[in-house]
Amino acid sequence: MKIKVDDVSKQFGHKQILKEINLELEPNRIYGLLGRNGAGKSTLLNILTDRIFPNGGSVTMDGEAVHENDKLLGKMYLMSEVNLYQKRARLQDLFQASRLMYGGFDDAYAKHLCDAFELNPKLKFGQLSTGYRTIFKLIIALSLPVDFVFLDEPILGLDANHRELFYKELLDSYSQHPRTFVISTHMIEEVANMIEHVFVIEDGKILVDDDVDHMLAQAYVITGPGETVDSYTEGLNVIGSESLGNLKGNYVFGKLNDTREIPDTVQISRMDLQKLFIHLTSEEGQAK
Amino acid sequence: MKIKVDDVSKQFGHKQILKEINLELEPNRIYGLLGRNGAGKSTLLNILTDRIFPNGGSVTMDGEAVHENDKLLGKMYLMSEVNLYQKRARLQDLFQASRLMYGGFDDAYAKHLCDAFELNPKLKFGQLSTGYRTIFKLIIALSLPVDFVFLDEPILGLDANHRELFYKELLDSYSQHPRTFVISTHMIEEVANMIEHVFVIEDGKILVDDDVDHMLAQAYVITGPGETVDSYTEGLNVIGSESLGNLKGNYVFGKLNDTREIPDTVQISRMDLQKLFIHLTSEEGQAK
Repeated sequence: MKIKVDDVSKQFGHKQILKEINLELEPNRIYGLLGRNGAGKSTLLNILTDRIFPNGGSVTMDGEAVHENDKLLGKMYLMSEVNLYQKRARLQDLFQASRLMYGGFDDAYAKHLCDAFELNPKLKFGQLSTGYRTIFKLIIALSLPVDFVFLDEPILGLDANHRELFYKELLDSYSQHPRTFVISTHMIEEVANMIEHVFVIEDGKILVDDDVDHMLAQAYVITGPGETVDSYTEGLNVIGSESLGNLKGNYVFGKLNDTREIPDTVQISRMDLQKLFIHLTSEEGQAK
Repeated sequence: MKIKVDDVSKQFGHKQILKEINLELEPNRIYGLLGRNGAGKSTLLNILTDRIFPNGGSVTMDGEAVHENDKLLGKMYLMSEVNLYQKRARLQDLFQASRLMYGGFDDAYAKHLCDAFELNPKLKFGQLSTGYRTIFKLIIALSLPVDFVFLDEPILGLDANHRELFYKELLDSYSQHPRTFVISTHMIEEVANMIEHVFVIEDGKILVDDDVDHMLAQAYVITGPGETVDSYTEGLNVIGSESLGNLKGNYVFGKLNDTREIPDTVQISRMDLQKLFIHLTSEEGQAK
């Protein structure tokens, strides 16, 4: 079961939010959806799950249109910042409502997660702090029998202990019961080890659609004396640079020049995913 | 100029939020204030800046009580999640209002920061997204002529590029014009290189009051076969553990046993600050 997004565009008023987006979501993979604030990530997730409609293009699952198709929409769940729940409703009743809407719900797993996060399911939704509202929505997302789980900024308000617990539970749940996750977050380094494939959206367009390993294998930091570094990286795809006195670091994304000799004073090291993202989506990186 | 907190306690209703807190803030240092959700960090910052009153204890600056003392309160600024600004007010007018309240404001630096973050000071506060509200409040915090700047979760809603820019600007500003910063955040690893001294609050009490370097110098991960690891760490201060099949990692905070020989199958490595925090404040760590 595969989701395909073809030429999806969306505008609000005069503002073009998404511009002819194309991508595919394969079964049983963990994707990262990365982008600056306002890049269009949430809009794309809302279109994927038919909460809002594109101005052009289509979303299909194995060739069938998703729009207003309850059978297909029942195979996906979007956890978003918006709180869809009645404040006076008890969490345990909201679990049962989710079962009715999706034709199933893993009660035992939800109970395990409530215990692990120390969340009492007898509480009402309105009694929860920001962090515990996030936790409650994560528990629903992980307990539904869907094939595609979309998580829009899933760690809002979580402290470091709860974030670590969530990452661990997500991986456990994924290995026991593989399905597709799409995680949209600004905390890139924290999810970098979890995601296999990354989409970077910038200014409404897909800037990167690549496996994380493949991406990082082409990401270098070249450091050394300013002039030597600039001369060594001349003609390469330099997406950013930093200076410290006379020393300079140039960030390169793409192939190095194999025929050029590496000067003794120059060092080549790897970039992490967050640093690569920052330089790819900065103005300097964009010009490339 | 030094701030001293003596035996500060606070309860709301029947709930004891802070229990006899004692600490000192020295001039020109960068502190981290860490704690789980609900530990009492924001309450402490509000008491320090006289926004709420303790049930017992005192806050003094060089021996003088801070409570209702405008001269001393003018030397501190608390940037918090609460939005104190009129939605219809223009940012540039709010800058001028801050100047009137604090007797000074670095217009040139605020302009530099507006440019760097691409924030138009002609906008009204109500027009800003969550991320840009945070940025606006950070610009005020960095441009006021105060000796103590308290930042309560300063990166709320910021994407990775804006977080990196903020960390860089804070360090630049600090080196040009040293003063004391207290940063309260859940994104511990991102600030770990910036902070010199850390307070960990757990359950309303100060659990750790220590220099970051000194803390990390006593934090170890002991990994290897489960039984060997347990036998080697017997009697040490084990604050947590993780298992992977037959392998185990025990987290130790405190001295290792110098007289015990390290088995060949056992490896000793360092913990980062976020990991140390997680294990210190978990239930397992708490029992110690």
